[in-house]
Amino acid sequence: MIGAEILVGTLVANGVDACFANPGTSELHALAAFDSRPGVRCVPTLFEGVATGAADGYARMTGKPAATLLHLGPGLANGLANLHNAKRARVPMINIVGDHATWHRHVDAPLTSDVAALAAPMSAWVRAVPDAASIAADTADAIRAALTPPGGIATLILPSDSSWDDAPAVEPIRVDTPAPAAPDEGALRGAAEALRGGQRVVVMLNGAATTEAGLALAGRIAAATGAKLYAHTGATRITRGAGRVPVERFPYPIDLGLAALAGAAHIVLIGATEPVGFFGYPGKPSRLAPEGCRIHNVAPPGIDALAALGWLADAVGGNGTPVQTLDLPELATGALTADAVGQSLAALLPEGAIVVDEAISSSPMTYGPCTGARPHDWLTITGGSIGIGMPLALGAAIACPDRKVVNLQADGSGMYTLQALWSQARERADVVTVVFANRRYGILQWELGNLGFTEPGRNARACTDIGNPDLDWVGIAHGMGVEGGRATDMAEFNRLLEAALRQRGPFLIEAII
Amino acid sequence: MIGAEILVGTLVANGVDACFANPGTSELHALAAFDSRPGVRCVPTLFEGVATGAADGYARMTGKPAATLLHLGPGLANGLANLHNAKRARVPMINIVGDHATWHRHVDAPLTSDVAALAAPMSAWVRAVPDAASIAADTADAIRAALTPPGGIATLILPSDSSWDDAPAVEPIRVDTPAPAAPDEGALRGAAEALRGGQRVVVMLNGAATTEAGLALAGRIAAATGAKLYAHTGATRITRGAGRVPVERFPYPIDLGLAALAGAAHIVLIGATEPVGFFGYPGKPSRLAPEGCRIHNVAPPGIDALAALGWLADAVGGNGTPVQTLDLPELATGALTADAVGQSLAALLPEGAIVVDEAISSSPMTYGPCTGARPHDWLTITGGSIGIGMPLALGAAIACPDRKVVNLQADGSGMYTLQALWSQARERADVVTVVFANRRYGILQWELGNLGFTEPGRNARACTDIGNPDLDWVGIAHGMGVEGGRATDMAEFNRLLEAALRQRGPFLIEAII
Repeated sequence: MIGAEILVGTLVANGVDACFANPGTSELHALAAFDSRPGVRCVPTLFEGVATGAADGYARMTGKPAATLLHLGPGLANGLANLHNAKRARVPMINIVGDHATWHRHVDAPLTSDVAALAAPMSAWVRAVPDAASIAADTADAIRAALTPPGGIATLILPSDSSWDDAPAVEPIRVDTPAPAAPDEGALRGAAEALRGGQRVVVMLNGAATTEAGLALAGRIAAATGAKLYAHTGATRITRGAGRVPVERFPYPIDLGLAALAGAAHIVLIGATEPVGFFGYPGKPSRLAPEGCRIHNVAPPGIDALAALGWLADAVGGNGTPVQTLDLPELATGALTADAVGQSLAALLPEGAIVVDEAISSSPMTYGPCTGARPHDWLTITGGSIGIGMPLALGAAIACPDRKVVNLQADGSGMYTLQALWSQARERADVVTVVFANRRYGILQWELGNLGFTEPGRNARACTDIGNPDLDWVGIAHGMGVEGGRATDMAEFNRLLEAALRQRGPFLIEAII
Repeated sequence: MIGAEILVGTLVANGVDACFANPGTSELHALAAFDSRPGVRCVPTLFEGVATGAADGYARMTGKPAATLLHLGPGLANGLANLHNAKRARVPMINIVGDHATWHRHVDAPLTSDVAALAAPMSAWVRAVPDAASIAADTADAIRAALTPPGGIATLILPSDSSWDDAPAVEPIRVDTPAPAAPDEGALRGAAEALRGGQRVVVMLNGAATTEAGLALAGRIAAATGAKLYAHTGATRITRGAGRVPVERFPYPIDLGLAALAGAAHIVLIGATEPVGFFGYPGKPSRLAPEGCRIHNVAPPGIDALAALGWLADAVGGNGTPVQTLDLPELATGALTADAVGQSLAALLPEGAIVVDEAISSSPMTYGPCTGARPHDWLTITGGSIGIGMPLALGAAIACPDRKVVNLQADGSGMYTLQALWSQARERADVVTVVFANRRYGILQWELGNLGFTEPGRNARACTDIGNPDLDWVGIAHGMGVEGGRATDMAEFNRLLEAALRQRGPFLIEAII
């Protein structure tokens, strides 16, 4: 049995059954080994950022790690930006990165680079397999690292000789999934006291705390105490819509963030990090909590957020769980705006939909209106690295083939990893992509104004405008095998969205806003 | 004066006049500063791999560094694969990578990452600016590092407060370009003795040795001694065609490489590295030189290759310089094949053309036929990291607006950084892209066979085939503002290529092979 077959056997034995793959020559034995036993579906991608973003989407929806298969240092490098997002999403993932044969590294062939150094900044765990005999244990360790709460990026570097050399056949190692640790009782008591104290308390949620079960518990706390609930700006997955406890997302603009926390005496963090400025701005603070506000971090990542919420809900005597009622608006009519798209989306979103939100400057206009929509999940750009939307949608669709995925996509961000459209077509992924075509980096133009650049010069204008020429998203999508249509008013948009939701398979709507 | 203006002033004072830019919020002061004085042209890109690849192309054609402007760790990460190629091309480049304000890093905002760690594997020099007062000296040091022979990637990390804080106005530091060091005379004498010794000698050339002047000197050596000249497989830039000394590229397939060196008693390296396998293969050697062959490395990178060649040419008494005569074939007719494209290209290539060759499996069919074409330059994929072609063509076109750029582009590789087409349209870059659409990763299917996988399984087939659905390159290009046409036979191809060469501005030809 060759090393690559042991690798695949260990993955299969531990339920890793999807691999988002962009292999090269040094990974061909590994690739071929995925055909040596049934059980793993390799999804080809045309760029590594698609592979890592898709593995993130798969993990967010299944809780399980997917594998990626990447080609040496440069292939890994192309996947790093979305690994950054996945690291911030705290999802499990197993990157298999090929490298030169151990005996070939010293000649410094053209594709030689320091793969481990490249992997480290975006990985929780990195190891280079020394030889084929080590591959069983090293693969098991990678899986264990990925599954260790809250979930991590494990990068296994696979020199090609460890892949093709023979090794003794072994029974695949089965990895037990470690459970999250119990929350600290002292911290819980402090938070409960704050919640009962009558002052303004903000509860920031992420991870398990924004799932249906987490929000139900958080809702009990809020109902009993009047605490304000927020999902983290870059929450991994928010379960929402009718029947769920509604939660606002903490706002991205720093002034809105400061306002949201004004008067808060306590902030309770449950699976979430402290609210901070997305960027530093001249004359503005980094930490957004007001002076004297106490932070209660009762469930840092890796700690059982549901247990913490349950303990707090019981402690504050929260019984009722106020859930959202179904509240569908009419379809929007008239001019096509991000607000109008949000309204029609809320009206039409099917039950069980997965919304992938990389709408950036158009995002606030869609999240709010969908509060009373049919039950759905909402995935965000966790680490702020743009180019996650289309890959994330691909991975979510592979993970949940019976659910509709709706990707709300800014045009500038979409261009980063547009190759995902081809994989969506190849896999017949059930994804509707709505491109908000404002033909500029809207968020940058907004930030320029925010920083006082009210009359940008030639270079600043050139680099924040993505028109001239305008992108033709319908043409681009069609060129990669994805059908689509363009909407310039809401009548067209509604017709296209209704048709896209009715059919199966990928479809792209270019919404000119 | 704010730090960002000092940065730009120092760049302008040292002749850095192009910046391939993909800024985000943390780079907005730097971006705006490019408008604070005339002299720098910012070229917007929609993906960072386009920016770094374009800066490489610019440097290959001008010998000067361009700047890039990249957004934090993930933005840099997206540019790393083409920085890998640029590092192997040994070109000068100055990456300006924004980072959070120094006082904002400790709060671990979503986009925080270890920028210096990410930069290190692909940079010759990395420094984070500590404050605005340091920016003048740090920028000068970055320029000096980039210009130090043979040329290097300098990465200057710019925390946003160092960019927006005030600093004392200073006269911009002017950096002297260091000269390459003289070759070692002992090594030269050994090589001269080998060249005169009557045994088989192979001379491997790269860097300055494959420019017109270098090849003229190498030609004298070959004429006097019978030595065999090769350009390195991944040569940075080969000046060729009528009036130049012709040189073959050392072959990529390992068996052809071994055959090319069979019987060689000596290998003389001039600006080139020793011939090694592009990958390690089971049962095949890493070093390709035959047993007992002596390696004479007379001009390692940073050493004056032209001086070494001149010394050797004089030492071996080489006088004649056999140059290539103009030898234009007829236009190819009939079926569209890579060979036929090579033939028609040789017939039509205009004087002064710059050929960017990322044709991968179709590359050997184009380089040979163009040997007798009108004088031109040939740029290759130096580091083996695919996705360089379209960005490199963009950069070469910005560098040389009066020369036609022809990008020979494999379809699989082209998909990595296809966003470059939009920048070509925006800048009206004079680039003709010829996509060799074989609708597969041809090189991988060839390597699979080479490794003995004659009947690949479902996953291996899925991940080496990029058809199903077929990419429509003309549609994709059109969607980014680049006109194009599809050719399925040589009559169509010839007509499209003639028209594309006649007009100015970007055009894409999809050649179905």
